[in-house]
Amino acid sequence: MPDILHRVGMQGSAEKVHQALSTLDGLSRWWITGTHGNPQVGGTIHFAPEGGGFDMQVLESTPGEVVKWRCVGGPSEWIDTELTFRLVPKQDQTFVLFTHAGWRDPVEFMHHCSTKWAVFLLSLKDWVEQGKGHPHPYDVKIHPGD
Amino acid sequence: MPDILHRVGMQGSAEKVHQALSTLDGLSRWWITGTHGNPQVGGTIHFAPEGGGFDMQVLESTPGEVVKWRCVGGPSEWIDTELTFRLVPKQDQTFVLFTHAGWRDPVEFMHHCSTKWAVFLLSLKDWVEQGKGHPHPYDVKIHPGD
Repeated sequence: MPDILHRVGMQGSAEKVHQALSTLDGLSRWWITGTHGNPQVGGTIHFAPEGGGFDMQVLESTPGEVVKWRCVGGPSEWIDTELTFRLVPKQDQTFVLFTHAGWRDPVEFMHHCSTKWAVFLLSLKDWVEQGKGHPHPYDVKIHPGD
Repeated sequence: MPDILHRVGMQGSAEKVHQALSTLDGLSRWWITGTHGNPQVGGTIHFAPEGGGFDMQVLESTPGEVVKWRCVGGPSEWIDTELTFRLVPKQDQTFVLFTHAGWRDPVEFMHHCSTKWAVFLLSLKDWVEQGKGHPHPYDVKIHPGD
């Protein structure tokens, strides 16, 4: 079963990174603007860009350690996939080890999403370090028409 | 067996993208500066940044279609892994479907390399579209100390 894997590191405490991953304001600043819903464990967060969207059930949210979601609404390829952000403090930075697991097949859309997650995790880095992320629709485009 | 997967699309013909993937000048403009060696099928390309490097044996190189390498020198985790750039023209752009396959384990270094490949594939996009890539050591940094 193929997974999407990424790692980025950022100057900022694991608690600050957790805030960016577990509050509606934080998530709106690096992934998708206008996020709403309930980011507590057991709640569901709604990410609703024009023309699509994702509903994420929060499975875990431990300050300074981890955030884990299950996708319960969105593209068919995403349903029941699990997304984990594991926080690893090291010296002067916090690493985020990211997995988007449970894809059934390595379809072309999975290739696209892998590259796009890199873009958004670097947006998370910019948000934590500089207070300026690049959430959708201001994200870095990875192909004409993206 | 986990693979790294990515997809980027760029304005430019599949032949032009193939040039960027199969000539020493092209590879030096988006991945690693100062690349040398033999980029023909059967040859070995040497990517030699300070403090490390990769030797890639060219398994396939078909203009407008595909470039495929096997890693024969470099970090132990990379040895015998295979890297494929498959070119897919669609309307006004060429998509690059990238896989870095044959990793033995989803180690933390693999997470790092996945994110880094996204950065370099977007550098390839910039090189093809604008004539200005961001090869190492001018690449986008994904953590403090990268």
